[in-house]
Amino acid sequence: MTDFAATKALFHLPDGVIYLDGNSLGPLPRSTPDRVARTLRDEWGEMLIGGWNQAGWMGQPMELGDRIGKLIGAESGHVALGDTLSIKVFQALAAALAMTERKVILSDSGNFPSDLYMAEGLLGTLERGHSLRVVDPEAVADAITDDVGVLMLTQVDYRTGRMHDMADLTAKAHAAGVICVWDLAHSAGAVPLDVAGCAADFAVGCTYKYLNGGPGAPAFIYVAPRHARTARPALSGWLGHDAPFAFERSYRPGEGVARMRVGTPPVLQMAALEASMDIWDTVDMQALRRVSIRLTERFIEGIEARCPGLTLVSPRDAARRGSQVSFCHPEGFAMMQACIGHGVVGDFRAPDIMRFGFTPLFIDERDVDAAIAVVARVLEERLWDDPRYQVRSTVT
Amino acid sequence: MTDFAATKALFHLPDGVIYLDGNSLGPLPRSTPDRVARTLRDEWGEMLIGGWNQAGWMGQPMELGDRIGKLIGAESGHVALGDTLSIKVFQALAAALAMTERKVILSDSGNFPSDLYMAEGLLGTLERGHSLRVVDPEAVADAITDDVGVLMLTQVDYRTGRMHDMADLTAKAHAAGVICVWDLAHSAGAVPLDVAGCAADFAVGCTYKYLNGGPGAPAFIYVAPRHARTARPALSGWLGHDAPFAFERSYRPGEGVARMRVGTPPVLQMAALEASMDIWDTVDMQALRRVSIRLTERFIEGIEARCPGLTLVSPRDAARRGSQVSFCHPEGFAMMQACIGHGVVGDFRAPDIMRFGFTPLFIDERDVDAAIAVVARVLEERLWDDPRYQVRSTVT
Repeated sequence: MTDFAATKALFHLPDGVIYLDGNSLGPLPRSTPDRVARTLRDEWGEMLIGGWNQAGWMGQPMELGDRIGKLIGAESGHVALGDTLSIKVFQALAAALAMTERKVILSDSGNFPSDLYMAEGLLGTLERGHSLRVVDPEAVADAITDDVGVLMLTQVDYRTGRMHDMADLTAKAHAAGVICVWDLAHSAGAVPLDVAGCAADFAVGCTYKYLNGGPGAPAFIYVAPRHARTARPALSGWLGHDAPFAFERSYRPGEGVARMRVGTPPVLQMAALEASMDIWDTVDMQALRRVSIRLTERFIEGIEARCPGLTLVSPRDAARRGSQVSFCHPEGFAMMQACIGHGVVGDFRAPDIMRFGFTPLFIDERDVDAAIAVVARVLEERLWDDPRYQVRSTVT
Repeated sequence: MTDFAATKALFHLPDGVIYLDGNSLGPLPRSTPDRVARTLRDEWGEMLIGGWNQAGWMGQPMELGDRIGKLIGAESGHVALGDTLSIKVFQALAAALAMTERKVILSDSGNFPSDLYMAEGLLGTLERGHSLRVVDPEAVADAITDDVGVLMLTQVDYRTGRMHDMADLTAKAHAAGVICVWDLAHSAGAVPLDVAGCAADFAVGCTYKYLNGGPGAPAFIYVAPRHARTARPALSGWLGHDAPFAFERSYRPGEGVARMRVGTPPVLQMAALEASMDIWDTVDMQALRRVSIRLTERFIEGIEARCPGLTLVSPRDAARRGSQVSFCHPEGFAMMQACIGHGVVGDFRAPDIMRFGFTPLFIDERDVDAAIAVVARVLEERLWDDPRYQVRSTVT
């Protein structure tokens, strides 16, 4: 049982900040700096090249994979860490396409753009007449036709928080002979997941959002056990080889998902992720989900009561929503800048969406009430008219 | 002018260790732990999501690219950091193949296996009748025939230290209409380089060896300015998009080499690399090369004089050798373990090669003499007969 009153103390949160952007970059666990310093001084500094064995660096991608696997309902030994989410999307999609003769990849307009971009890059490289069919999120179920080879979706929409029913869509897809690639970027650590129970073929995700692995933390990939010996790695790097240090002349894929490893693991990022996973190992995802729903419902209710100019773009039904709430407003950009200036950190997604993430490990009902009060004040006093909130920078 | 007597103090080297493996994993710069701690506490901890702009995380891949660019003789703005070397090899090779109708990739048996594996994976994905032709290093020049589309080589052989003449082979290749992809893993920070002067088409490399970026440090990619607007990214991730935060529905490649960025940069690894680049910014590569040659020649002379059982497998001519020296011996594995046990850290590469890297930033002539004495003692006293040196582990 997770004590969410206690977990808040495990994170560093700057004074005066209510951080509702843990869905974009999770905050720093208090234990992370010491953990990383240990890797730097005691491992890299003292063991030098020996750290790969003595400090277990080489095994981290699979060990951390197992810890994340528990959060997403994966079978043990079927998740590997490494690279970035875009790379993992490419790997999963390339492996899926190699399993089917069909030429259509089905996705939706709520998918994260990089997933669609990586698909475009892969199809442009393949030049074999594949096409990417992008439909509205609501139209996905009906678009699973028997010319579709792969269904590639992000479960929780990064802008609206709308959540697909993974079990239902996967079952529909399988009934039509379609292979499923699920992106869990906004799901892992946000909602209970059961990739094994859903019979997902491939799943990928990142660890710097809800999982607090830090900026640039590695991504993960899950390959269903039934595909583990046949999935063909398009990115066949040495650490996915069956015997990386035999330096054989030809590639032989490693056992299971280990073949999806590519190059040298980012040891410092892995160390930071270990520190946050020490927290996540103790989290009951069902309990977390209950708190998450309570927080998001309270926020929606409060904003709608006090900020009539804001329009909810997240599903009102909590069962169809991840752990974020989005509202739109034509002046959303400046409005969010004003909120940030007044200590409520959410973020903005073009053209007009203000996103607020609710992460029970460090956000409680008092934070929600305080955030509502700030957003209401920004609106009532038109604080967003201040010209300094109008200047756009590259990342918001 | 670099003062190599002074640079040694900038690195942490464990007591009693002569570290001749900086060609595999460079040692820890003393400034790195504080630099990384600052990124953790002052940037991630305090700025949270704002770190992408305020701390400049988003710009690091290009800024660090420029600093590395100076070491490899690249034009400013044409090197990007990110991912792992295997991924960068894939990107360069895929872009090169898209520029030619020819179907043969020429490489050599001295290339690092992962480069060949990544090529296999790419060709298997393309399924367009390409083939990978692997010849002996000495046969490369004559194998540049007009059916070859891409010449893909690692300049310095990871096992023997043999160094290709990059300018000469690139000129020969261009005369035959062949595009060149150079892997500089064992060259960057080891020998003076001039990718622009050589007219290399693509170059890639890693930063955790001679450049001291730490375990899992990011890789780099150079795209010649003449290809910068046409090179097609196969791995078309959002951070290579012309406007990553516009979240457009389709991919549009960014300006120049920035299109070779893929996903979120590994910020902690970038911070560590910044610390080591503060040292590298001051290094005169011509001066370093002179010292490197002096050290390697002294080592060869000393070992050959005192260890008749060891056979030199590196080129004797310094002009044809990188910054490492390799000797072979049937009992090389146990022998290297015994050397490590007695404070001289080199490494072993199957089947019988003992590698010793000479990195003037922290290795001097006294170290060379002391290392020779240890290797000689291991041989004379058959210290490698000790059973504890016979046990093989995964990484050596």
